[in-house]
Amino acid sequence: MRSHYCGDVNQSHVGQEVTLVGWVNRSRDLGGVVFLDLRDREGLVQVVYDPDLPEVFDVASSLRSEFCVQVKGVVRARPDSQVNAHMRTGEIEVLGKALTIINASEPLPLSMDNFQNNSEEQRLKYRYLDLRRPEMTQRLIFRSKVTSAVRRYLDSNGFLDIETPILTKATPEGARDYLVPSRTYKGHFFALPQSPQLFKQLLMMSGFDRYYQIVKCFRDEDLRADRQPEFTQIDIETSFMTSEQVMAKTEEMVRGLFQELLDVDLGEFPKMTWDEAMRRFGSDKPDLRNPLELVDVADLVKDVEFAVFKGPANDAEGRVAAIKVPNGATLSRKQIDEYTKYVGIYGAKGLAWMKVNDIDAGLDGIQSPVLKFLNEEIVSSILARVEAKTGEIILFGADKANVVAEAMGALRLKLGQDFELLQGEWKPLWVVDFPMFEKADGRWYAVHHPFTAPSTVTAEELAANPGTAVSDAYDMVLNGVELGGGSVRIHKQDMQATVFKILGISDEEAQEKFGFLLEALRYGTPPHAGLAFGLDRMVMLMTGATSIRDVMAFPKTTTAACPLTDAPSLANPQQLVELGIDVTKAEKAAEKSE
Amino acid sequence: MRSHYCGDVNQSHVGQEVTLVGWVNRSRDLGGVVFLDLRDREGLVQVVYDPDLPEVFDVASSLRSEFCVQVKGVVRARPDSQVNAHMRTGEIEVLGKALTIINASEPLPLSMDNFQNNSEEQRLKYRYLDLRRPEMTQRLIFRSKVTSAVRRYLDSNGFLDIETPILTKATPEGARDYLVPSRTYKGHFFALPQSPQLFKQLLMMSGFDRYYQIVKCFRDEDLRADRQPEFTQIDIETSFMTSEQVMAKTEEMVRGLFQELLDVDLGEFPKMTWDEAMRRFGSDKPDLRNPLELVDVADLVKDVEFAVFKGPANDAEGRVAAIKVPNGATLSRKQIDEYTKYVGIYGAKGLAWMKVNDIDAGLDGIQSPVLKFLNEEIVSSILARVEAKTGEIILFGADKANVVAEAMGALRLKLGQDFELLQGEWKPLWVVDFPMFEKADGRWYAVHHPFTAPSTVTAEELAANPGTAVSDAYDMVLNGVELGGGSVRIHKQDMQATVFKILGISDEEAQEKFGFLLEALRYGTPPHAGLAFGLDRMVMLMTGATSIRDVMAFPKTTTAACPLTDAPSLANPQQLVELGIDVTKAEKAAEKSE
Repeated sequence: MRSHYCGDVNQSHVGQEVTLVGWVNRSRDLGGVVFLDLRDREGLVQVVYDPDLPEVFDVASSLRSEFCVQVKGVVRARPDSQVNAHMRTGEIEVLGKALTIINASEPLPLSMDNFQNNSEEQRLKYRYLDLRRPEMTQRLIFRSKVTSAVRRYLDSNGFLDIETPILTKATPEGARDYLVPSRTYKGHFFALPQSPQLFKQLLMMSGFDRYYQIVKCFRDEDLRADRQPEFTQIDIETSFMTSEQVMAKTEEMVRGLFQELLDVDLGEFPKMTWDEAMRRFGSDKPDLRNPLELVDVADLVKDVEFAVFKGPANDAEGRVAAIKVPNGATLSRKQIDEYTKYVGIYGAKGLAWMKVNDIDAGLDGIQSPVLKFLNEEIVSSILARVEAKTGEIILFGADKANVVAEAMGALRLKLGQDFELLQGEWKPLWVVDFPMFEKADGRWYAVHHPFTAPSTVTAEELAANPGTAVSDAYDMVLNGVELGGGSVRIHKQDMQATVFKILGISDEEAQEKFGFLLEALRYGTPPHAGLAFGLDRMVMLMTGATSIRDVMAFPKTTTAACPLTDAPSLANPQQLVELGIDVTKAEKAAEKSE
Repeated sequence: MRSHYCGDVNQSHVGQEVTLVGWVNRSRDLGGVVFLDLRDREGLVQVVYDPDLPEVFDVASSLRSEFCVQVKGVVRARPDSQVNAHMRTGEIEVLGKALTIINASEPLPLSMDNFQNNSEEQRLKYRYLDLRRPEMTQRLIFRSKVTSAVRRYLDSNGFLDIETPILTKATPEGARDYLVPSRTYKGHFFALPQSPQLFKQLLMMSGFDRYYQIVKCFRDEDLRADRQPEFTQIDIETSFMTSEQVMAKTEEMVRGLFQELLDVDLGEFPKMTWDEAMRRFGSDKPDLRNPLELVDVADLVKDVEFAVFKGPANDAEGRVAAIKVPNGATLSRKQIDEYTKYVGIYGAKGLAWMKVNDIDAGLDGIQSPVLKFLNEEIVSSILARVEAKTGEIILFGADKANVVAEAMGALRLKLGQDFELLQGEWKPLWVVDFPMFEKADGRWYAVHHPFTAPSTVTAEELAANPGTAVSDAYDMVLNGVELGGGSVRIHKQDMQATVFKILGISDEEAQEKFGFLLEALRYGTPPHAGLAFGLDRMVMLMTGATSIRDVMAFPKTTTAACPLTDAPSLANPQQLVELGIDVTKAEKAAEKSE
């Protein structure tokens, strides 16, 4: 039905007859000539209908937006004055010779030109129309190119695409599982996987050596802007490879993606330990485009009379850190108050500050509400430590180390944006040497997941000092976004049992939940390591989309509903009987449609 | 950790030092020399340990099956007398210089050498070990090659890989949906998709033009040998393409697959109408390797005194068909009785037969219990119609046409096997021109699905004569197996509404279930058509596996359970409260583990 895609017609076709199909993007009758912008997935082309073919012209005059039509015509160069440099096909136009309306369109229920006027709900309800917008179409085409390139790389590197089950057993990876009642075993449930973690480890135990899968994962969480109930992972696992080798392979893959699809050379990714990332950036996924850094000053303020500094400075778990902001001395008291509120969100009780009005004027050049607690020597040492210059402001966080990291890390990002400090377009890095465990509520939690191997210690050493153990884990971070993360896995049963024990998982619970994994570790499990990338987030970053919903064809709302199909919906009562379940508490229909 | 895969070591490496990792497939101490068969996913290689390196030899002597080890050694040619032609690496062996036990193995809970001794349950419980068997490993590697080749073909033909939701709305496609309770909207349920049918149609409405996805689909059915609760489709949809074009593209894809992966040229696929397939083979997925055909003889027996023939022969919905079997006259009465029982399974009330002992001897040469009802002229005309020869048997089915097709179609397949008649290895074809609807229980059912377009008729014509309408649908059949099926879809609202009406779907029900589709058809929907292949079945056929479970990494049992992870399992009561559901009837644990 077509000879070319609309967006592909160009100078080389001038003089040729083409047949195009697509949608009426816009149609205008300008002084007896109809100008039709015809759109398909590859782009737009201008078609011109003159009145000298009256029957065709009449059809052209009757076109309305989003009619699906077939056009036959001859390509011609536009006069220089009418060349449209903003349009891929802007050097040519098609002189229409024939026109068939394939399918008419009623007036649309949402605006195609000013889609900002459409509510998110409207956009999702009429998703098939929203996806016609070239911006949305191009994002999904880009996503398809990403998965295609990823697969090509992994296929050519000996990775096998192996499917793992969607109907599986609940795994305790933090978030809530979606459950699926079993009809055969009434009262029992499958869970949708939060990741194929255990299955990919089992595949390594089977000897598949290199596995990948681009796979849906599921979390029944209260949604945030960048979360969806179902999301997609590029899931990778390897045997007999070290963490260095896994990082090298996957870095090469991502570098290739950026080169091929964005013509960007990411260069070699630097590696940074988790310790350094937390110390310098207050984050385990630092945005390195932001030049601001946290500078530790606890040692300088150990003996001051100011309790806010002195307390944390003398607490083994405390921290006092400064961020200096070029040109920050211009901040008003009101602006500083706003930043103080901002760090409050992250648990900081306040935000001490110090303006450097004149670095050469001693204490007279410094303006700060905390100046009265500090002597000249201490102030000088702080200024020296942060290498302060005239016109800067220094902001201080003092609290438990985790609060300082979180609050000052967030403040750093906000200052970077507010002062437009970001440098460079793409700044990737690896964060490595994570702690194995973190303590909360008096018990240990796995920082990655309970199958992550420690870096060097034996099972006995780990049991003795869980708090200091470093894991053989790695996160790939780009522009402050965690693109993916992974680790070397435990491949010895005694180590796995030790980790479960540290995490407070009883033998009985371990047996019930992971019995098959512990059993599998008995039969010659190879050393293995892997990584999973968040595909949605990766595509979001690469396309510059601001919402994860803009890189998925049919996302859910933030309340996990689909306005298009009206899912979830009421079930057939007979089917519930067959499943052996009953609804104990139902939202009213009115509540749902709100 | 390795320089080569075990299975890849060959003559070209003779003299080189190699480092291999893998599993001990077998280890024998033969007269003071240890022969170790080391296995990885690519194959086996023989490693020899001499006692002249005592420390290494001692380790080698201690090896047991399925230990995971690292071997260093030098490749050498085997003496001619020891070359193993059955082994890819059979011309060489590795003289071991070092040996590290990476991970030991306890004695295995199932037999690796005689896996037939393992029950299906055992194989699934220790799936990670069952998958180590080279036969299983190779099947999954082959499956990965299939998906990779499919993707390469579709990518290079402009198809976009677009993901559709797994948490979606119930669709009435015959089978039962798996339900997923919603926590946000208590009492409401998502359904797991039986196919992405409606979403892929919506993507065409969005203008994506060419879509594909290799995607999990779900059916909560009572399982048969070749069914699984979750299975995988190669799902394809196109806009602006005719059925002929879709068939040409997908045929090219499958032909390419067979060429690339099996070195088989399938040639051009013949097309056969549904009518012809039912008439000649009693099946809409005929196995063309089988030379037997059904021959209609109703017109010849219209006036006989034999009610079994006469009734169906004079019934507009009846049929009388014969199958003649070369060398069939040797069948004993007992064997014929077995076949009579066999067709009884398919609803046939009996099986008339006629042995041709001597074709030249007139009625004297014919042996048949029904001979007494037929005169010489009729017998002659039947013999002439089926072109009978001495030594053949002719078997008759007479009943309603659908019963004859089913029973005689099944009998044809059984006779083909029993008499070893199959010719040729691969016999593909397209079956086309299906009826739009079939009647059962006094109402119409869609033969494909309710979104399938009729071939030529208008909505009004279809409404007037639903029984005679032919759909623009097509099934790809190979060796009697339906590899895939598809159709041109309805792209006009009046046609879709007419089909719903014929199917007895009320306006209200249509609105509730497909309101979004009917709405979407208003806004310039393009003509579109697609197809879906059953990936599991395709891989099964290509690898010669006899069970769908043998081409999936982690299948479920026939009662839809996973003995490996013990899914489904009991849910956390608190989670059920959060979901607003309650279990009304639970299997006892003992029942489940049965």
